[in-house]
Amino acid sequence: MRGMMMDRPLRVADILTYSEEIHGTAGIVSSTVEGDIHRESYAEMAARCRRLAKALRTMGIGPGDRVATLAWNGYRHMELYFGIPGIGAVCHTLNPRMSPEQLAYIVSHADDRVVFLDLTFVPLVEKLRSRLPDRLRYVILADAASMPRTSLANVHCYEELLASEDDDFGWPDFDEDTAAGLCYTSGTTGVPKGALYTHRSLVLHSLIVGVSMQNSLRAGRRLLPVVPLFHANAWGAAHAAPLTGTSLIMPGPGLDGPSLWNLMETEKVFAAWGVPTVWLGLLEEIGKRGRKPAGLEEVVIGGAAAATSLIKGFEDLGVSVCHAWGMTEMSPIGTLGFLSPEQTSLPARERLRLKSTQGRRAFMIDLKVVDGEGRRQPNDGEATGELFVRGPTVVSAYFNNEEASAAAFDGEGWFSTGDVASISSDGFLNIRDRSKDLIKSGGEWISSLDVENLAMAHPHVANCAVIALPHPKWGERPVLVAVPSVDRPEPDGIRAYLEERLPKWQVPDDIILVEELPLTATGKVSKLTLRQIYADHKLP
Amino acid sequence: MRGMMMDRPLRVADILTYSEEIHGTAGIVSSTVEGDIHRESYAEMAARCRRLAKALRTMGIGPGDRVATLAWNGYRHMELYFGIPGIGAVCHTLNPRMSPEQLAYIVSHADDRVVFLDLTFVPLVEKLRSRLPDRLRYVILADAASMPRTSLANVHCYEELLASEDDDFGWPDFDEDTAAGLCYTSGTTGVPKGALYTHRSLVLHSLIVGVSMQNSLRAGRRLLPVVPLFHANAWGAAHAAPLTGTSLIMPGPGLDGPSLWNLMETEKVFAAWGVPTVWLGLLEEIGKRGRKPAGLEEVVIGGAAAATSLIKGFEDLGVSVCHAWGMTEMSPIGTLGFLSPEQTSLPARERLRLKSTQGRRAFMIDLKVVDGEGRRQPNDGEATGELFVRGPTVVSAYFNNEEASAAAFDGEGWFSTGDVASISSDGFLNIRDRSKDLIKSGGEWISSLDVENLAMAHPHVANCAVIALPHPKWGERPVLVAVPSVDRPEPDGIRAYLEERLPKWQVPDDIILVEELPLTATGKVSKLTLRQIYADHKLP
Repeated sequence: MRGMMMDRPLRVADILTYSEEIHGTAGIVSSTVEGDIHRESYAEMAARCRRLAKALRTMGIGPGDRVATLAWNGYRHMELYFGIPGIGAVCHTLNPRMSPEQLAYIVSHADDRVVFLDLTFVPLVEKLRSRLPDRLRYVILADAASMPRTSLANVHCYEELLASEDDDFGWPDFDEDTAAGLCYTSGTTGVPKGALYTHRSLVLHSLIVGVSMQNSLRAGRRLLPVVPLFHANAWGAAHAAPLTGTSLIMPGPGLDGPSLWNLMETEKVFAAWGVPTVWLGLLEEIGKRGRKPAGLEEVVIGGAAAATSLIKGFEDLGVSVCHAWGMTEMSPIGTLGFLSPEQTSLPARERLRLKSTQGRRAFMIDLKVVDGEGRRQPNDGEATGELFVRGPTVVSAYFNNEEASAAAFDGEGWFSTGDVASISSDGFLNIRDRSKDLIKSGGEWISSLDVENLAMAHPHVANCAVIALPHPKWGERPVLVAVPSVDRPEPDGIRAYLEERLPKWQVPDDIILVEELPLTATGKVSKLTLRQIYADHKLP
Repeated sequence: MRGMMMDRPLRVADILTYSEEIHGTAGIVSSTVEGDIHRESYAEMAARCRRLAKALRTMGIGPGDRVATLAWNGYRHMELYFGIPGIGAVCHTLNPRMSPEQLAYIVSHADDRVVFLDLTFVPLVEKLRSRLPDRLRYVILADAASMPRTSLANVHCYEELLASEDDDFGWPDFDEDTAAGLCYTSGTTGVPKGALYTHRSLVLHSLIVGVSMQNSLRAGRRLLPVVPLFHANAWGAAHAAPLTGTSLIMPGPGLDGPSLWNLMETEKVFAAWGVPTVWLGLLEEIGKRGRKPAGLEEVVIGGAAAATSLIKGFEDLGVSVCHAWGMTEMSPIGTLGFLSPEQTSLPARERLRLKSTQGRRAFMIDLKVVDGEGRRQPNDGEATGELFVRGPTVVSAYFNNEEASAAAFDGEGWFSTGDVASISSDGFLNIRDRSKDLIKSGGEWISSLDVENLAMAHPHVANCAVIALPHPKWGERPVLVAVPSVDRPEPDGIRAYLEERLPKWQVPDDIILVEELPLTATGKVSKLTLRQIYADHKLP
């Protein structure tokens, strides 16, 4: 029997109008690419989004059209996040850290009609121009006075577009399964693949993140998303913050430790979300300054596994860490590392162990671990296998990519994450490795994540990665590539440290010290690049 | 263009499994009808719900069947809230405060198959028996030892039903628009009408309440819903508490001031939700004890307009008041009286004025005020008219009642609330009156609510209601019916007080002192009954 409730669609624009009416005085503080601080309330943002909607229509953008963004975190990027889907078009966030080849591929594959870009990215697009469609139009996120000289054709000025419209506009109704957002994965395997979010999935994700992350998301709170708006739907921050009345402090391009420290201190930031590499930089700055930015209470770490030492670094400062896990294909939140009230009173070592896992599932996200034959494994914290997920905020296919779509789901329609994991009886997900990063030595599996996590705890290791190199006898053997934290590091000391704590056969055959590690477009250490660099490295 | 996200339904059972896995140690503390305190974790509840699901199926209950409850707030009632819809049946909460005629009508109109009832209500149902269908079965919410002698036929024992099943059960999938809950309005006008909630509307409502009411709903918090599970979907508490990991402290039948004070004190209750009459009782008890129950920080007042003096009474004790408004037809939350961070630093008098309104809309709820010709009125705080609402948590029709359904919606599909209201420019809803409670004197409207609110501020008035009586010259004139708070009240003093503060023509023609006011089945003052009692009252 069907119930009798109104058939009202969930729309991204509903978040916008709600934030305008209910949280109109909260808003966005942006550290701009021009170098100043810009303040815009959610009420002002909503009015500008209505102008943007009219400008898009004037440009001929209609339902289903893909509109790309190439921008840092800032108020204009937020306006695009709402204005584009508001009229039924698709907001396609491009990741500027992708290679030129990847970017050209993605723009063409998505069939973008317009690219909205920050001043910073004009030179990048100029270089790409010959590989991009001639009909592509460009809107530069600047006012008339800041418009650059450029070799690009079909160029518009964002502020002039908005000034040429008024804000008398009503957001149209459409089915909640209408596409709203498009985000390509960083493509560490094969070509980048697109996740095509719906209005329903984005609104549900915002609500789920909102009820789960009440420290970061709350009326009057101030959240700094270091995670870019172009990275995996900004972990939901762009939608959940206006919904809950949380102000967003946007760092623009300044993602180094000193810039973040200053912005957090000046703007009284309560919570900040970002990837491990960013937090290593902030911790270093905190070490130099001798204190954390005043008022910083919560750090959410995701995008890559957080080492226990990183988590401990923040918790020792009185900053609560939420270690989260997700994927672009999951909108992206999958699990959250919050402890139950009982667990928060456990001894520090036990708390840290729980926080070093990926945490527990978000509402409506189902997890299952299966073995090589597809048999479901028990949640006993021991049995490992491939992790599959399901839920209304998980992709059902990749955008225009039948081959990748066919490979990504099991017979029951669950999405294959490519992670090897176990789940404990109380629901904590422990990702042991990306399946392709596991090292098979003499028939036994070695988790590169486990070895990295241990190495990170050594005081002379600032950052590191463990990769497999081919070995004539064992098949593969692990090698540690490490960035030292001191001037004269001692590889032998690090080796001895690992030998004390690991089974002998898991200790890396070699320790290579480097100045920095190559990163992927989403700020994760690129093991693909490392394997290429060290392909011919001779093991001792 | 359609997005590409999994088509997973929102189901009430998803809340149950989530609370089991993620908030399994939180749960329900019940002050039982047997008189003891019972504790059940959400993990235990989920396992018992699975037994209940199997027991329902064994009884032949299937998708779409209506299963009624007649019970106080307690753990078994919570199990019914989840176990019944979990299998696709409809949980129909009966309000024991309805008249026998109304109850018999509702059970028959809903075509209930089974009634689950508390021990307390066995005599009530025995009396009703001849008016209920012969085939109706009864399950008494008790263990075998507590089963009463009864003249009812087809009687089962709840604990025996559960004991005869195991908890190996998986919740079935079905469309999210499947009916999940049924709740009849108290029927102050005409016959009671049924709101038929869907799985979608209940899950969305839980998420919306969860992100909006973060003080009451938060992992580790303890919430006492005085609002009954049979009253308007318990304002969302029954679903949002397990979802967020909030423990529920269930008062059973003990809703008087002393019982509530003791339970709050003993169980360290942080927040409590209920109707104004309940809070008058608690304030009186607090006055006697000289302090609030330790730890009580938030009171949510809904179900009827809260007088400013009631709000002030709690705020003066350091208990934050959220004055909320909703309707059974709205799942029920429509507006919430939270102030913005800026407004919380306003002077006390201004804060109190804002909190005396019904607050601002919940996410996804749209409000409009229209005049007699259906023209939309501006949100200027001045223009009044009939309030209409729209949203995915609002009914689209009444259950099996075409006539009532036809009358309840306007041409655009908005639901007619029957309230006369204005909305301020910053979104605060001010309900001036139920349209049928407005008093038309000499061609001018008098808001009974405004006069009541003022009278409640007089120290000698404990509770009151203003009704219209027919008048040969003016058409109608207001009369104040008041419960005094002191032994020797002074009607003339109250009159002088009102004369000082009201336009002369709004001052009631008479002040009638009574020992208590008649209440409706949902605990509101019954103006219908008052009008009947005083139909022949002679105005001075």
